[in-house]
Amino acid sequence: MRDFLPKDAEKMRHVEVVARDLARLYGYEEVITPVLEHYDLLAAKSGEEIRERMYAFNDMGGRRVALRPEFTASIARLVAGKMRHKPKPMKLFCAGSLYRYDEPQYGRFREFWQANYELIGSSKPEADAEVLTLTHDLIERLGFRNYWFKIGHVGILRGILAQEGVAEEKQNTIMQLLDKKRLGEALTVVQETCASQSCVATLKMLLETKGKDVSQVLEEAKRVVKDYESGVAAVENLKEILELTRESGVKFNTLIETGFARGLEYYTGMIFESYVPELEIALAGGGRYDKLIELFGGEPTPALGVAQGIDRIVLAMKNQRVSPRVPDENKVMIIPVSEELRTKAFELSLTLRKANIPAEVEVMGRTVSRALSDADRRRVTHAVIVGPEELREEKVVLRDMKKREQRTVEIENLSKEILKGSS
Amino acid sequence: MRDFLPKDAEKMRHVEVVARDLARLYGYEEVITPVLEHYDLLAAKSGEEIRERMYAFNDMGGRRVALRPEFTASIARLVAGKMRHKPKPMKLFCAGSLYRYDEPQYGRFREFWQANYELIGSSKPEADAEVLTLTHDLIERLGFRNYWFKIGHVGILRGILAQEGVAEEKQNTIMQLLDKKRLGEALTVVQETCASQSCVATLKMLLETKGKDVSQVLEEAKRVVKDYESGVAAVENLKEILELTRESGVKFNTLIETGFARGLEYYTGMIFESYVPELEIALAGGGRYDKLIELFGGEPTPALGVAQGIDRIVLAMKNQRVSPRVPDENKVMIIPVSEELRTKAFELSLTLRKANIPAEVEVMGRTVSRALSDADRRRVTHAVIVGPEELREEKVVLRDMKKREQRTVEIENLSKEILKGSS
Repeated sequence: MRDFLPKDAEKMRHVEVVARDLARLYGYEEVITPVLEHYDLLAAKSGEEIRERMYAFNDMGGRRVALRPEFTASIARLVAGKMRHKPKPMKLFCAGSLYRYDEPQYGRFREFWQANYELIGSSKPEADAEVLTLTHDLIERLGFRNYWFKIGHVGILRGILAQEGVAEEKQNTIMQLLDKKRLGEALTVVQETCASQSCVATLKMLLETKGKDVSQVLEEAKRVVKDYESGVAAVENLKEILELTRESGVKFNTLIETGFARGLEYYTGMIFESYVPELEIALAGGGRYDKLIELFGGEPTPALGVAQGIDRIVLAMKNQRVSPRVPDENKVMIIPVSEELRTKAFELSLTLRKANIPAEVEVMGRTVSRALSDADRRRVTHAVIVGPEELREEKVVLRDMKKREQRTVEIENLSKEILKGSS
Repeated sequence: MRDFLPKDAEKMRHVEVVARDLARLYGYEEVITPVLEHYDLLAAKSGEEIRERMYAFNDMGGRRVALRPEFTASIARLVAGKMRHKPKPMKLFCAGSLYRYDEPQYGRFREFWQANYELIGSSKPEADAEVLTLTHDLIERLGFRNYWFKIGHVGILRGILAQEGVAEEKQNTIMQLLDKKRLGEALTVVQETCASQSCVATLKMLLETKGKDVSQVLEEAKRVVKDYESGVAAVENLKEILELTRESGVKFNTLIETGFARGLEYYTGMIFESYVPELEIALAGGGRYDKLIELFGGEPTPALGVAQGIDRIVLAMKNQRVSPRVPDENKVMIIPVSEELRTKAFELSLTLRKANIPAEVEVMGRTVSRALSDADRRRVTHAVIVGPEELREEKVVLRDMKKREQRTVEIENLSKEILKGSS
C-alpha cells in the first residue's frame, strides 16, 4: 500500500478528472459502489486467480465480505438489481480504489485505482468500437504519443473449443493458462479434452496468428478457423469492430493476437489492452461480457466495458515525461506586519479567493522577512504585505516574488493587479 | 454499505470538487493515503469507541490491518515520517472513504466519505481561525443558508482536571462520557477523582455555560474557571480565535458550549462542529490536536484540522433543497439512418466532443424513430440524424428535441449550431 504525496496525488486526480470529463462527453453516468462487498458476489465470476487474491474477512456481524478486486461484479449487481428497469443502452462510469493481494511488482500494487466505463445493452459492433474509441481518446487527451492496443476475441478460441465439445470449465482452465503464457500446458489440456487432431493443430496455429497488419492477420485467422462456424463469426465480428473504429478516423497502433486471453472468466467477445513501451503491464483492459448480467440474476443483457488503470497511467506519464497541461497559477501569501493587522489580512484573503485567486495568510506569527523567505521556498508568486501606513490610505504592498519588485497598490484593485501580472 | 446511483453520485462528486477547489484556494495540497492501514497505527490514538468499531482483520501475510475509520492517523503518520522535513506550516487536504461498524442511523453509514483539511505547524489562533473560515466557506459555496457552528475548547475542561491532578486516562473517560451526553456518569467520575469540592461545582457550572451570544458566554466562562489558570487561558484563546474570524468579516451563527467534548481523544484546544436543522449529526467536525504528531514519532508539532462529511452534506443538501449550480448542458445523440453511415456518425461524435459537446452515438442498431423516442426519454437536447442525401451535400439533420423542430445544417457548422441554440 502506498501514499501519494502532493505531486503524485495531483497527477492521480488529474487523470481521474480527465477520465470523468470523458465520461460526460461520451454520456456515461457515474455511480459509486462500496469498497466492501459480499464475498460471494465478488467471487462469483471473477476467475480463480483473483478469487484467491482477494482481501476477504468476516465482519462484526459474521458476514463474509471482501475488498473489491474489480468493478464489474458491483456494476453487474446494480444492472441486475436496482437499475434493472433503466432504459438501454445504459452507460455507467465509476472510479475508485481496488484491492488484490498480489506480489507487488513494477506498476502493480495491492491497492490500485481504476476509471471504469461499462456500456450495457448493446450487442452491436458499434458498442465495441465506442469502448475502443474512448480508451484511445483518454490516452490521447492525457498527452501520450507512443502506445498501442493489443486486441483479440475470446469467441475465436471459445468457439472452436465449444464446437469440439470442451466443457466450459475446461475452457476456463485453458484460457487462464493462455493468459499466463503457459502455452505448453494449455495445449496439453486441449489435447486431453479435444477429440479431433485438427483442433489441436488449429489452436497451435491460432497462437501464432498475430501481427500489426490488421487485415492480413484477420484474413489468416479466417483461413485457420474456417472449419469452425462460430470461430469464423468471431473473426468477422472483430473485423467489423476494427473497421468501424478506423474508418471513423480513430487511428492507433494495433497488435492483433488471436490467441490472446485475459485473466477474467467472464469475457465472451472482443478483448483488448493498451500498452506503452515503458511498462510491461497494461494501462487499460476491457472486453465484451454478454452473459455476466444474467449470471447476476438480471435479464440476458449484452455488455462490455473497460477499466483504465489510473495509477499505472500516472506511472507511465512519468516514464514518458507526459505532463498534465496545468496552467501556471497565481499563489498569494498575505503577511500582516503586526498582530493587530491579522484580521485585515484574513479579510483580504477572502476577497482574493472570491476572485478565484489562491491566497494564504501567514499563520505562524513570523516577521515579514521570515515569512517572505518561506514564501519564496513555496513558490508563492505574490506577497501582499499589510502595514499600518499603507492601510491608512486603503493600500497594501504587493510584491512580485519572481521579479523581486514591490509597489503600493490600492486594496480595491488588488485582485486586478495580481491577475494582470500573470497574463 | 450503499450504492450511489447517478443523481446522488453527481452530488457526491460535486461536493468533492468544491472541497478540492477550496483546498487549492486556501493552499492545501492533496495527499492520497491507503484505505487499509496497520491496525496499531489506526488504534493508537483514536479513542476506545472508534477502536471497537473498526473493520479489522489479518491479511494474507498475517499482518493485523484495518479499514481507516478517520484520516488523522494516516496524516500524522505522513507528517511524522515521509513529510517530516517539509517546511511548516504544512497544509494538507485529502478526500476519500472511511469505515466504521456503527449501528446505521439516519445520515450515519458504515462506509462514509470525508474531505479533510489539516493545518500543521502553527499554534497561533490565526490557524484556528483559518480552519473555521474554510469550513464556513465550503458550506457557503455549496449554497447552504441555514446552519450553525457549535464551538468549544477542550483546554477548558482538561485544564481544570489537570490542575486538580486527574490523570490523562481518567480525563479521557470523562470527556468521552460528556461526548455521549452521559453527564451524570461523567460527574460521578469527576467526584471520584477530584479532591476538591470546587472542581465538581466548576464543572457543573461549565456544562451549563452555553449560548449564542459569544462574548457573553465567554465572559461567564471566564468567571466560572477563574481559579484555574490554564482554564482561563483556554477561554482567552477561544475568544481570540472567534474575534479574529468575526472581525475579518466571516459571519456565522455560533453556539458556544464550554462543556462540549468530541469523541476523539487527541484534541487539545478549540473544537467545533457544524450543523443544519435537518440533520441531528454534524456535517463537519474538527479541532486542535497539538500532541498527536509527537505521539506518532514526529517532532512536537502543533496542528489542527477539520473533516467535512461529504455524504452527510449531500443528504443535508437534499433536505434543504440546495442544488449544485450545474449549468444546463447540451446532450447530443447521433443517429445514422442505416448501417453504412455508422462510421460517419462516429466521426461526427469525435468532432463534437472535441468542441466539448457531450455526444452519444446510437449503438443499438435501432430505427431513427425508436432512437428518437429513446433520446427524448434521456433528455437529449439535440439529435443529429445522418442520412445519405444530406450527407452528399456535407450536411446532416439537426433536431432540437425540446422545440421539436429540425433543419438541415452543414456538417462544418454543426458544433456552432448546437452551441448557438443553447446560449
